[in-house]
Amino acid sequence: MPSGNTAQQMRQVLLASRPEGGVAVEHFRLEQAPMPEPGDGEVLVRTLYLSIDPYLLRVIKDVPGYDPAIGPGDVMYGRAISQVVESRDPRFAPGECVHLYQRWQTHYAAKASDLRKVDVERYPASLYLSALGQSGLTAWAGLQAGHPQPGETVVVSSAAGIVGSMVGQIAKVWECRAVGIAGGQEKCAHVVNELGFDACVDYKAADFDNALENALPDGAHVYFENVGGAVLDAMLPRMAKHGRIILCGLIAHYDDSPLIIRNSNWMLTRTISIQAFSVFEHLARLNECIEQLGQWIDEGKLKVDERISEGIENAPQAMVDMFEGRTLGKQLVKVAEPQ
Amino acid sequence: MPSGNTAQQMRQVLLASRPEGGVAVEHFRLEQAPMPEPGDGEVLVRTLYLSIDPYLLRVIKDVPGYDPAIGPGDVMYGRAISQVVESRDPRFAPGECVHLYQRWQTHYAAKASDLRKVDVERYPASLYLSALGQSGLTAWAGLQAGHPQPGETVVVSSAAGIVGSMVGQIAKVWECRAVGIAGGQEKCAHVVNELGFDACVDYKAADFDNALENALPDGAHVYFENVGGAVLDAMLPRMAKHGRIILCGLIAHYDDSPLIIRNSNWMLTRTISIQAFSVFEHLARLNECIEQLGQWIDEGKLKVDERISEGIENAPQAMVDMFEGRTLGKQLVKVAEPQ
Repeated sequence: MPSGNTAQQMRQVLLASRPEGGVAVEHFRLEQAPMPEPGDGEVLVRTLYLSIDPYLLRVIKDVPGYDPAIGPGDVMYGRAISQVVESRDPRFAPGECVHLYQRWQTHYAAKASDLRKVDVERYPASLYLSALGQSGLTAWAGLQAGHPQPGETVVVSSAAGIVGSMVGQIAKVWECRAVGIAGGQEKCAHVVNELGFDACVDYKAADFDNALENALPDGAHVYFENVGGAVLDAMLPRMAKHGRIILCGLIAHYDDSPLIIRNSNWMLTRTISIQAFSVFEHLARLNECIEQLGQWIDEGKLKVDERISEGIENAPQAMVDMFEGRTLGKQLVKVAEPQ
Repeated sequence: MPSGNTAQQMRQVLLASRPEGGVAVEHFRLEQAPMPEPGDGEVLVRTLYLSIDPYLLRVIKDVPGYDPAIGPGDVMYGRAISQVVESRDPRFAPGECVHLYQRWQTHYAAKASDLRKVDVERYPASLYLSALGQSGLTAWAGLQAGHPQPGETVVVSSAAGIVGSMVGQIAKVWECRAVGIAGGQEKCAHVVNELGFDACVDYKAADFDNALENALPDGAHVYFENVGGAVLDAMLPRMAKHGRIILCGLIAHYDDSPLIIRNSNWMLTRTISIQAFSVFEHLARLNECIEQLGQWIDEGKLKVDERISEGIENAPQAMVDMFEGRTLGKQLVKVAEPQ
């Protein structure tokens, strides 16, 4: 008779087919599979939270140059916070919580060397995937790449998303003026009233261009770009001389639609720079970032919005919600409670 | 009876109407006007050479943010090398040659403080508008802004133009691989055979994309952009990791056509930067540039292509020729011989 976990089942979310344009729940499917068994130097974890991130669309669409791609029939793969159930590595003990890249499964056998412990006594586990994870690091290190100076104006698109909301709040801590761009009056009101931005402009409004101009009397010294598309185009004439655009994401183009720029000449007349930012080049600073942002959270200077869907079976819908702009802050999927 | 110059006439080229798209000779007209008379602190010059530059289209189209604009009925305005005829400033004597911004006229009364003497004994007068003028400074300082390292690959568009031809040749002096992009086999052959580039790709050829890939086995570390449009788009997947794009010009968009980027995601996957470059921010280094490039010209390391149209009445046609890509190297108009 087989021993232990082999008789048990766990659940996983697979990519059923590659999206051509945007993403839909039909592109995924839920399956049962045998419980994984950890080998030497591995640990078995039970998944607590899955991180739903914009970059995942690039992964499942196999955008050239972006690794690792996930193909049809593969189990989805991303960041997670999980809890050790069984350890075959002396560095980890059952009950400890870890950050890792793993398959979208309720249970996963991970290499111990790929794990990073997180202190869920100090902060809720979910925060290590939002403000105290790669989203926070992206905002904190990405904004630094734009060299914002006190008194300058920082603009950020997707201002109601987790990265954008952090960028604007960090800009305020650094004594900059923070202006958000978001879709819809409700999000804009939230960004100003709850997150403390100086202004937020609704890109879906008919008078977007005028509203943007009015919100930026001195222009934008730093523009933190998460979106692309018409918003990026509209920002070019709004940049101050020597304005710095940090290109963090281009979510409007992950569906392969072209980026159409009508205001390209402003790049020259304002001597603008665009610097792509990859958080993967800044992972060595994660602990420093967690210390800094954690302190600001403790001091009430940073508010963190999280939208938590319950159950691994709802991960596909959480992906769709994020891409269709329904998420305020960080989109997470809660798979299980810590025990 | 009026004295001296007032009875004399000189010729000038005016903007007749603003071009909507590209530029045509009908957008200009030639007129006679009274000979200017220099006031105190001014000098009267006779024009030797007018510089025909891509930025002039931005000026006459009144692209927002770009000064000074020239409107219908205004005399055209640009860079020139001229010779002092009469001086009412102690710093200048008749016969001296100067660089200045002036109206497109056979004669011009200039403020002495706006003049810079050039040594036409050492180099031909025309060179001070090409390799030893702003075109050379643009190439030299602009390429430095891309931080090319020995062994890296530098790509430049408009490689047969004066700036592009200098960029590639300077890249070779700095021990980089130089790859040009130009329109037509004739220009490409010239760039490789006469100017010493390692390769040159014809953007008008049907297999442009493949040819570009084959010419760049290690990708492009620095891309010096003069054009924009489909060429810029095609270069994005060809950039090396952390590739630097120096945005010097966007001649494909001075007619207001949009810049359409289908490969925007490569900006992120390769962590590319785009830095606009304005030569006007580097004028303090002009003398250093003239010394350096002059030495390389003396040593035979830099070849300078000039296309010189004769007569101020042919300045409009020279503008059209440059914009339609008929010019190899620097387009100049010779108005008079030094005396």
